[in-house]
Amino acid sequence: MDTPLEKALSTLVFTFHKYSGREGNKLTLSKRELKELVKEELGLGEKMKKPGGIDELMKSLDRNCDQEIDFKEYTAFLSALCMSYNDFFQEEEK
Amino acid sequence: MDTPLEKALSTLVFTFHKYSGREGNKLTLSKRELKELVKEELGLGEKMKKPGGIDELMKSLDRNCDQEIDFKEYTAFLSALCMSYNDFFQEEEK
Repeated sequence: MDTPLEKALSTLVFTFHKYSGREGNKLTLSKRELKELVKEELGLGEKMKKPGGIDELMKSLDRNCDQEIDFKEYTAFLSALCMSYNDFFQEEEK
Repeated sequence: MDTPLEKALSTLVFTFHKYSGREGNKLTLSKRELKELVKEELGLGEKMKKPGGIDELMKSLDRNCDQEIDFKEYTAFLSALCMSYNDFFQEEEK
């Protein structure tokens, strides 16, 4: 029986593959796949609508500059999101 | 309404605080808190039973060597776990 933390980690992995398999390299996210993931899974759709929003995000995540987001780059993205969630949580606690 | 990915990220944050609040600094995990988290939330209890198992894990995660695991060090740990889950997932797909 998986714990909530184990289930959460599985969700992170499965969400990546749900999008990475859509076009091109099945083990990386193209810009379009990243855009779809962010829009459908993170409710950041509005932010991404501003001109260049997705290009900016892509540029900040694509550390090896190969125009694709690999799994390691994706986990760095999620870590950053987690840090923001955590800051928010700590603010709420105050 | 939160998406599965958003719920998963919340679980990562809440799990940290469930343990970090137990003793000492409420915003970091002591060795004992880390041990409890790993044992109760990750089913790695067996591995931690071997002598020095938890000391080894603590040493590998505690990048700034302050004998505490802060939230950033915790996300690095989860990223590494995610990478293992992902490798396993890709092996299964082959």
